Amino acid sequence: MSTFGTLYRVTTYGESHCASVGAIIDGCPPGLELTPQDLQTQLSRRRPGQSNLTTPRNEKDLVHIQSGLELGVTLGTPIAILVKNEDQRPHDYTETDLYPRPSHADYTYLEKYGIKASSGGGRSSARETIGRVAAGALAEKYLKIAYGIEIVAFVSSVGKVHLSATAPPPSQINADEEDDSATDTLSKEYLELLSTITREDVDKHITRCPHPETAERMTKRILRAKEAQDSIGGTVTCVIRNVPSGLGEPVFDKFEAKLAHAMLSIPATKAFEVGSGFRGTEVPGSQHNDAFIRGENGRLRTATNWSGGIQGGITNGEHIYFRIGFKSPATISQPQDTARYDVPIVEAMAAMVIMDELLIQNARKTAASLLPPITTLPPTMVMPK
Amino acid sequence: MSTFGTLYRVTTYGESHCASVGAIIDGCPPGLELTPQDLQTQLSRRRPGQSNLTTPRNEKDLVHIQSGLELGVTLGTPIAILVKNEDQRPHDYTETDLYPRPSHADYTYLEKYGIKASSGGGRSSARETIGRVAAGALAEKYLKIAYGIEIVAFVSSVGKVHLSATAPPPSQINADEEDDSATDTLSKEYLELLSTITREDVDKHITRCPHPETAERMTKRILRAKEAQDSIGGTVTCVIRNVPSGLGEPVFDKFEAKLAHAMLSIPATKAFEVGSGFRGTEVPGSQHNDAFIRGENGRLRTATNWSGGIQGGITNGEHIYFRIGFKSPATISQPQDTARYDVPIVEAMAAMVIMDELLIQNARKTAASLLPPITTLPPTMVMPK
Amino acid sequence: MSTFGTLYRVTTYGESHCASVGAIIDGCPPGLELTPQDLQTQLSRRRPGQSNLTTPRNEKDLVHIQSGLELGVTLGTPIAILVKNEDQRPHDYTETDLYPRPSHADYTYLEKYGIKASSGGGRSSARETIGRVAAGALAEKYLKIAYGIEIVAFVSSVGKVHLSATAPPPSQINADEEDDSATDTLSKEYLELLSTITREDVDKHITRCPHPETAERMTKRILRAKEAQDSIGGTVTCVIRNVPSGLGEPVFDKFEAKLAHAMLSIPATKAFEVGSGFRGTEVPGSQHNDAFIRGENGRLRTATNWSGGIQGGITNGEHIYFRIGFKSPATISQPQDTARYDVPIVEAMAAMVIMDELLIQNARKTAASLLPPITTLPPTMVMPK
Amino acid sequence: MSTFGTLYRVTTYGESHCASVGAIIDGCPPGLELTPQDLQTQLSRRRPGQSNLTTPRNEKDLVHIQSGLELGVTLGTPIAILVKNEDQRPHDYTETDLYPRPSHADYTYLEKYGIKASSGGGRSSARETIGRVAAGALAEKYLKIAYGIEIVAFVSSVGKVHLSATAPPPSQINADEEDDSATDTLSKEYLELLSTITREDVDKHITRCPHPETAERMTKRILRAKEAQDSIGGTVTCVIRNVPSGLGEPVFDKFEAKLAHAMLSIPATKAFEVGSGFRGTEVPGSQHNDAFIRGENGRLRTATNWSGGIQGGITNGEHIYFRIGFKSPATISQPQDTARYDVPIVEAMAAMVIMDELLIQNARKTAASLLPPITTLPPTMVMPK
Repeated sequence: MSTFGTLYRVTTYGESHCASVGAIIDGCPPGLELTPQDLQTQLSRRRPGQSNLTTPRNEKDLVHIQSGLELGVTLGTPIAILVKNEDQRPHDYTETDLYPRPSHADYTYLEKYGIKASSGGGRSSARETIGRVAAGALAEKYLKIAYGIEIVAFVSSVGKVHLSATAPPPSQINADEEDDSATDTLSKEYLELLSTITREDVDKHITRCPHPETAERMTKRILRAKEAQDSIGGTVTCVIRNVPSGLGEPVFDKFEAKLAHAMLSIPATKAFEVGSGFRGTEVPGSQHNDAFIRGENGRLRTATNWSGGIQGGITNGEHIYFRIGFKSPATISQPQDTARYDVPIVEAMAAMVIMDELLIQNARKTAASLLPPITTLPPTMVMPK
Repeated sequence: MSTFGTLYRVTTYGESHCASVGAIIDGCPPGLELTPQDLQTQLSRRRPGQSNLTTPRNEKDLVHIQSGLELGVTLGTPIAILVKNEDQRPHDYTETDLYPRPSHADYTYLEKYGIKASSGGGRSSARETIGRVAAGALAEKYLKIAYGIEIVAFVSSVGKVHLSATAPPPSQINADEEDDSATDTLSKEYLELLSTITREDVDKHITRCPHPETAERMTKRILRAKEAQDSIGGTVTCVIRNVPSGLGEPVFDKFEAKLAHAMLSIPATKAFEVGSGFRGTEVPGSQHNDAFIRGENGRLRTATNWSGGIQGGITNGEHIYFRIGFKSPATISQPQDTARYDVPIVEAMAAMVIMDELLIQNARKTAASLLPPITTLPPTMVMPK
Repeated sequence: MSTFGTLYRVTTYGESHCASVGAIIDGCPPGLELTPQDLQTQLSRRRPGQSNLTTPRNEKDLVHIQSGLELGVTLGTPIAILVKNEDQRPHDYTETDLYPRPSHADYTYLEKYGIKASSGGGRSSARETIGRVAAGALAEKYLKIAYGIEIVAFVSSVGKVHLSATAPPPSQINADEEDDSATDTLSKEYLELLSTITREDVDKHITRCPHPETAERMTKRILRAKEAQDSIGGTVTCVIRNVPSGLGEPVFDKFEAKLAHAMLSIPATKAFEVGSGFRGTEVPGSQHNDAFIRGENGRLRTATNWSGGIQGGITNGEHIYFRIGFKSPATISQPQDTARYDVPIVEAMAAMVIMDELLIQNARKTAASLLPPITTLPPTMVMPK
Repeated sequence: MSTFGTLYRVTTYGESHCASVGAIIDGCPPGLELTPQDLQTQLSRRRPGQSNLTTPRNEKDLVHIQSGLELGVTLGTPIAILVKNEDQRPHDYTETDLYPRPSHADYTYLEKYGIKASSGGGRSSARETIGRVAAGALAEKYLKIAYGIEIVAFVSSVGKVHLSATAPPPSQINADEEDDSATDTLSKEYLELLSTITREDVDKHITRCPHPETAERMTKRILRAKEAQDSIGGTVTCVIRNVPSGLGEPVFDKFEAKLAHAMLSIPATKAFEVGSGFRGTEVPGSQHNDAFIRGENGRLRTATNWSGGIQGGITNGEHIYFRIGFKSPATISQPQDTARYDVPIVEAMAAMVIMDELLIQNARKTAASLLPPITTLPPTMVMPK
């Protein structure tokens, strides 16, 4: 179905050639000041082709808020948003349409529904993500105000061009099996990047890679693909800072499981890893375990962060970071560039997951807070006050 | 919460030291012959420590079916199963318990609930997975009978020891940026393995790696960790054969998104990739696209299978394959071995996803089949009969 | 939240003074021919004030379909619909607004959200039901084509003026305790009405009561309320014909439970009864039980229908009928008339319930049909083929 | 399916002749002291045949808690409970079983599943309600401690014998159409009863009717049915006191809609009304509206309570009261008595609804409380602090 979330629940609609695309966002807290511009910023960042280093940003994909706020303040009721489609004519039929395009969704939509949109992709169209980005931008605004949560995604590789901080370490596969030392560190450079990167840093370069030199090499790689009428994939890395501890549900709805679900729902994604990811499978437990240290105010922190801010499926208050692989686009005749337009979608899906988990955890926490203190258990079992 | 699935819905319960662990399985089709042994086989395969190359399999973790069948046939009503815990005493309190164990769930459970089980892990305990494995085994039985679906998972790496067929290709990162050829193939060896591997092959070696020589090297790696009172992670690869096309929902519940959710809900998982995965980000679209060919009975097939059997979030009838990364276990003083006990859990979660998606798609397909044929659309938009 | 249904899932949005009201309808079967007029008919029937015996129907509340169909055929993807609000200005603030209006939703919305729409009612506004009526009309079209299902609701009472066929029997309360005979029949007149009534019959009179004489008395009652600047409530009775047997889920999601949920979600509803309803509590079991008879084609039917087409929470193929009580509207200064505008909403909610349950049951039935025949059970336990 | 609730989620299992019946209760707040006896009390109250005025209460239907608590305190994880079935043999096949019993679930289960339990009813068995009663008792304990919420249900009629306070008023149907005065009051006796009744009052008489004289007449009516090998239905009325305002969701999940869903999921229910119910359809709005008055601490209260504590689908802090109709039991050869065993089930389902809605509303309220105060809106739109 087309709905995501339990208490912060987003339902999207729309194909490429219908009247509009949009979403109903249910569960937004009441009393939040909101303007269309709050949503427009991220919508504009996600718009493919919105600039090619040169084109000025024009006023396309304008968001229209239909409901759920009055005098600029959210009412707590569903917020519907829509963005009109410019081209609403069905795709003209041509002979070649009889053959499904390889690695597109044409074939599978036909198999699933027995019918498909004339334009082929139907809901797999990039335009579907408009509703998500708006829903995510709304969640983000709340999360920033109420918790100071920061979500920043950036392009970490294009083809084989990798930002070195986030790159997988030099391959040790099947070599040096006796040597555990080679892959045992998360570079300081990486941890520093995760702690400090901002969206301004990301947007400085057209490729949305925060390292200028690497960004240049990425640009070259993209242009090479364009010239060859080909396409190339990439990875996006995302960090979330200031997420409270305690989010995520044990068992099926572990925080990383919800994140993985959210990220793999973005078109063209094929891979997800959180914290140490695949690399963590090669690092012995003795090195991989994140030792506790006392942080500010005596709060427990971890010295390292192989866990990526999640332990036992529950957030521990450290930075959450993860990486997503986007395959090379299937459309190669009209080459699309890179993962850069996916950066705001990744941020949006992350915001939706956090928002939903926060609401769920708040329900539990408030409920528990109304009970008398537990006095009959040994101190190891109870949270010290 | 502790529930997974929409129409095939599994809810689990239980910690390490409570009376029992188990599950309620709702949505099993009526009329399926079922014995406890159908569930026991996979339960025994998942039991950690059940053998150490030498120990004979003893009769522990016996499954008790509580409801939902009569005279050995499912009624369509919920099937409750339980497995008794042997050690039901709460963990004794010791001074060291005051300090949370690094990279365990002790700390995050305390943060989440304000209270934790004396034994620490609570629901993150491996015993929680018993309910899932039973639920998966039940789904598998149905899927095998009704659709001939086969699900086989195996250990593809332990630490740096990789089964070569499934190993990521030699690293090309930041090198040979101009050379697209290096990573452009899925080896025949790999495709052959995916097409033919059986559980018998997998279980031939204690490590559950189907390649004897690699399996031996894995054993060595594990023993080295044991000797060092350390632990080591690994990866599990899984293939699903004979899944009908058309499963999975566009947008949020793409088939790979549900799979990722399911797999990242398994304890200690940190990474997931389907089809070409992270590797697919480096292969140009012109090579990555899976060209259509005519298969048996004129049915469309793909010549390659970078897509991993899923396009646009919907299955296309090809083999579905994916890889999961398990971090090195946090408990190093009592070393656990490898990912091999996770093999049946991966199979179980895969079965649950397929079962749920099949039921959902059957609902839609049956509904559509009752409508009169579509005559007003161009042939490109409609499934040829 | 603002979502109803599992596989046929409707999410609505909108208040009285926002840009538009509407809905996203997810799960509509693909391949259904659909025009805006299919939805408009019921939308026009539900529009309060659309006529007062005299006013010609004008073109207000026009539905705009945003997505999910192409060339007039549904794609299986979400269908978004919207109807623009004419008056989009927030309500002007007046001194009297400081005091919540009795029995309106002003007070409870403030208590719930800490904020309310300037116009008071927010989502409790009658305009919210537009999305539901459209979603129901869509479901109805499918149900009619695919199953021949007919849903007809009508006004069965206004104040104390009751259509005699559906009226509760003369009160026996606390009298004649020894006499069981008095309330023991469902009148032939009632059963006949349920079997034959059509929407054309219902719409013949402005009050939507199919009995002309009673309808006249209802009109008088309404006019009397208007003159007194007062309001009056009423009941709506609904019958559903040709629903397949087997719908509804045991336990929590019994068919009548879903119906009750749906009907009590309509504004101003306070009561629901299905089949014999409250009356059935006074009829001894020996009389209340619906004896089986052989119907056409040898199919089992029931001689009576106290059960209202539902037994053990599951439909048995007989007519489903139920009655809903609407309290007198809280707004008395601008008197609204009767329950007649609720008739299409009742039909819409009924259609949504049936559609959802049909899809769920089809999923199960298709799954069971793929299993080999059951041969090991006694014949009493298995459906004869 | 067999699951109820969103954040307080109960899943039940079990038929009459399987190994056990039970439930998994997910979402119980952590830190609640809990003993099996807390659940047993209500389980014993619901047990049909547990006494016949004379039989001493024996120790049957003992509840076994499987998980989710340690040292008598809830952990926040799922609490599984089970009660063993004494008679686990399948029902013996007899010739008469070939014919479905009228108004039982035999026929509809066969139609739904193509198979049924040998004993007929399957999940429609009264034993299924054991899991619900335990889940409700758990919720009740929390609600009492954390909010002082009291839930009391009682038998308000048996056949035509009605407790006069709760009885529908003398029938005015089709008579005195011009006279609005006749039905315009909720009796003081009724309101007093709702404000003060306790479970001790209810249990004083075997029929669970709090009015001794009426209770005696009910007993006679039941005995008369028994002698005639017949059965008789009844109604249960329930009041909930001290529910916070603000619970319930606008639109589909109005508080009364959830209540109606919950109550109509109880076996043999056919009718539900809240507050003024069907009677409220006959009372003009001018009389039906509940005027506001200042209560203690200046808090707004209502002078009357036709609304039954719910306005616009949201609780307003007044007593919630509702009435449920139970048809005469279909089994007449082994006569079951009355609605009295349903009293604890009604209380249980009510507790589950409140618990779920409280958790959902707490999530929203906590989220809103973290936002800065709203300063830009007129005072009519914002909750005064």
